[in-house]
Amino acid sequence: MPDSLCLANGERVLADLNALRAIGAYNTGVHKPTFSEPHKQSLDWLAQKLPDAGLTATIDGIGNVFGSSSKPAPKLLAGSHLESQNYAGWLDGPLGVVYALEAARVLNPDPSFRGAVEVAAWCDEEGHFGHFLGSRSYLGQVTEADIDAARDRTSGRTMRDALADVGLARRPRVTVEPGRHVGYLEAHIEQGDTLESGHLAIGVVTSIVGVWQYQINFVGEQNHAGTTRMAARKDAGLAVAKFCVAIDQRFPAACGPRTVWTTGRITLDPGAPSIIPGAAEMLLQIRDEDAGIIARLEQLLRTMADDVNAKGPCTVTIEKLRTGAPAMMNPGFQDAIEAASKAFAGGRSLRMPSGAGHDAQMLATVMPAGMLFVPSIGGISHHWTENTADDDIVTGAQVFVDACRRILGG
Amino acid sequence: MPDSLCLANGERVLADLNALRAIGAYNTGVHKPTFSEPHKQSLDWLAQKLPDAGLTATIDGIGNVFGSSSKPAPKLLAGSHLESQNYAGWLDGPLGVVYALEAARVLNPDPSFRGAVEVAAWCDEEGHFGHFLGSRSYLGQVTEADIDAARDRTSGRTMRDALADVGLARRPRVTVEPGRHVGYLEAHIEQGDTLESGHLAIGVVTSIVGVWQYQINFVGEQNHAGTTRMAARKDAGLAVAKFCVAIDQRFPAACGPRTVWTTGRITLDPGAPSIIPGAAEMLLQIRDEDAGIIARLEQLLRTMADDVNAKGPCTVTIEKLRTGAPAMMNPGFQDAIEAASKAFAGGRSLRMPSGAGHDAQMLATVMPAGMLFVPSIGGISHHWTENTADDDIVTGAQVFVDACRRILGG
Repeated sequence: MPDSLCLANGERVLADLNALRAIGAYNTGVHKPTFSEPHKQSLDWLAQKLPDAGLTATIDGIGNVFGSSSKPAPKLLAGSHLESQNYAGWLDGPLGVVYALEAARVLNPDPSFRGAVEVAAWCDEEGHFGHFLGSRSYLGQVTEADIDAARDRTSGRTMRDALADVGLARRPRVTVEPGRHVGYLEAHIEQGDTLESGHLAIGVVTSIVGVWQYQINFVGEQNHAGTTRMAARKDAGLAVAKFCVAIDQRFPAACGPRTVWTTGRITLDPGAPSIIPGAAEMLLQIRDEDAGIIARLEQLLRTMADDVNAKGPCTVTIEKLRTGAPAMMNPGFQDAIEAASKAFAGGRSLRMPSGAGHDAQMLATVMPAGMLFVPSIGGISHHWTENTADDDIVTGAQVFVDACRRILGG
Repeated sequence: MPDSLCLANGERVLADLNALRAIGAYNTGVHKPTFSEPHKQSLDWLAQKLPDAGLTATIDGIGNVFGSSSKPAPKLLAGSHLESQNYAGWLDGPLGVVYALEAARVLNPDPSFRGAVEVAAWCDEEGHFGHFLGSRSYLGQVTEADIDAARDRTSGRTMRDALADVGLARRPRVTVEPGRHVGYLEAHIEQGDTLESGHLAIGVVTSIVGVWQYQINFVGEQNHAGTTRMAARKDAGLAVAKFCVAIDQRFPAACGPRTVWTTGRITLDPGAPSIIPGAAEMLLQIRDEDAGIIARLEQLLRTMADDVNAKGPCTVTIEKLRTGAPAMMNPGFQDAIEAASKAFAGGRSLRMPSGAGHDAQMLATVMPAGMLFVPSIGGISHHWTENTADDDIVTGAQVFVDACRRILGG
C-alpha cells in the first residue's frame, strides 16, 4: 500500500488529546478517577469517535470501551486507558487510546489494506477499584463477586454504586474471543527519563517488569517513653529504620542493572509520641524483569531477617504479598516498532524494559503483545505536571500507525 | 504525737483501691477514660469518702475533686488522678488519691495534731482532652475558650458535651489559694523497673524530667517506584530511616546517664507501595532532668540535619513542638520521704528522677512539691496488666502518711 495512506494526522492526534484533557482538567493535567463524571464523559467521547474509524462502539459492564471492525481481515487490538490517577497527567492512558484510534482511522478505511485495527480503552488501569480490573475482566479473571467487593480506594464508594451512577450497571461484559486478534499493541509515555536523557524518540519495550511485594513485620515491646531506660528497650520503630538502611547498604551488591526497590510505607504501632513502638511494619516492593535476580534479593532479605532475629532485641517476619512474573513482549512486535522508528523517527529508538505495569502485561498472557514508549519531560509521572513535547507526540503517533501496519502485514 | 496515731490502715487502703478497680473494671485493670461513666462514679466515690477524713467535698467545673479542711492549721495538699488511659492499669492515679485520703483519715481527726491533709483528684492527668487540664485549671492556666476547643482524642466528643453528660456543666472551677498550702505531695507507681530490680520499696523523686519534642520533616521527590532508577531517587522515606539510625548511633556519646529519646511516629507521604515517598516526618521526644544535656543533644540534632542538607539528596528541617522544663522536687520534702522510708520501709529507698509527667510538675510551679514512687511489677505501665504487690502498696501507704506528718511538722 502507498505510504501516503499510512501517515498519521499529527494535528488531529494533538486535538484529540487536548479534547480529552479538557474533560476533567486540573491545571495542565487532569483529575479523572475511575467512574468520575469526567471519566464517563471521556468514555462517551471515545465511543462517539470510533465510527470515524469504521468501528462499532461498545461500552461494557466494567467500563471497557471497544471499537469492533466487521472487516473480514486479520485484526490487531490496540489501546490503553482513559481514567487518571488523582490530580495527575493528561497523557498517561489517553496517549495510547488516541494513537490506537488514529491507527484505526488511518488503516481501517482503506479497502486495499487487508488488516484492521480494533480499539480498546481498558477501565481502571490506575487501580482506583482494583488491579487491572478492565483488562482482567476481558480475560475472564474478574468475577461478579469481585465487583461486589470492590471499593474506591479514596472514597470507599462501592464499585456497584459507581457503575450505577455512570449508567453501566447490569450491562454485559465483553471477554476475549480466542483467535480474533493477531495481538495487542499499546503506546504509553515512558514515565522515566531514559529516552529524554538519551535524546531518543521511541522506547521499544522488551518486557514489563515483575513486581514483588513484601510486608515486613517487626515486633518489639510497647512501653512508656519516659520511664523505660534505653538499655531495656525493644523499639520496633528503630528496628524498621535499621532494616531500611541495611537494605540500602546490601541490595546494590546483589541487584541487577535495572532493579528498583522501594519502601513506600512505614507504620509504627501505636504511633504516639510518648510510647515506644511495640510493633512496626514496612511495605517493600522490588521490580525487575529477571525473576532470578528477585529470587537472589529475596534470599538476601531473608538472611537479613535471620540476622535481626538472632541478634534481637526485636523479631521480624516477612510476608510475601505479591509475586509478579515479568511479561515478555513479542519479539516480532519489537522488530516492527523498531523498523517503524527507522522509517519515521530516524532510528532514535531504544529497547528497554517497562518499570511500570500496563494492561499489555495482562493481554500478553493470551496473545502476542507489544508496547512503545514516547519520552516524558523530566521523567515526571503521576503528577499533573507530566508532559511530552508535541513533536514527540506526533512522531510517536506516526511510528505507532506504521508499527500497526507492519504487524498486520500491510 | 504518739506513733500509734500515724499508722496507715493497710487493709482499708487495699479495700479502697479494689473498690475503685471494680468501677470500670477491664480484666485485672480498668477502662476509665476522662468523663466516662465509671470515671464520674469514681469521682462521686471519693466525694463520699472525704467526710470520713474531716474534709468537705467539692467536684468543680473541670472535674477536679477537692477535700477541704476547716482546721485552722498548716495544710498539705495531696492527691493524684482517678481517670485511666484506655484499657490500662488499676493503680496509675488511684494509688496516689487513696494514699492522700488515708493520710487525711489518719492525721486530720487528731485534735492534738496541728496540721491537716487536704485531698485533690486532678481531672484528666492522662490527657484524654488536653494536657494536665485539671491541675492547670487549678493554676488558672485553662481558659473557657480552651475548654470550648477541647475534644476527646479517641472519640472526638467535645469537652463541653462530656462535662454536661456527667452533670458538671456550668459549675465554678476551684483555683489555687496562695499561702493556703505548705506544699503538695503525690504518690504514684514507678512505671519502670528500677525499684523492683533493686529490691527497693520507695522511690524518692528528685525531679520530673522535662519533655522536649521535635517534628523532623524530610522533603525528597515523589516519583514512580517502577520507572525511577535508584541513582535518580530522592527518597524521603530512606532519609528518615537513616536519620533514626544516626540518632541511635550518635546520641549515646552526648546524652546523660538517664536521658531517653523516642521516635514514636514515622509517616511517609503519600504512603503507597508503588510511590517513592516525596516527604516524610518523624516525631522525636527527648526527656532528661538536665536542660543542659537537652541543649547539647538539640545542637547535635541540628548538626546532623545540616549534614543531611549538605549531602542531599533530601532536605530536612527541625521544628520544636514542645519545650518542657524539668520540675525540681523540694529537697525538704525529699528528706521527709526518705526519713519516713527509714522509719517504715527499712530505708529501702532510692532518690531518682521521674521519667513520666505528673500533676506534681504543675503544682511545683506554685508551691513546694514532692513525689514518692512504689514499685511496678515488671515495670509495666499504661496496660491493664500493670500491678504492684499488696505488701508494697501497704508499705508505700505507711511511708506516705508518715511523710505527710513530717512535712506538716507533726
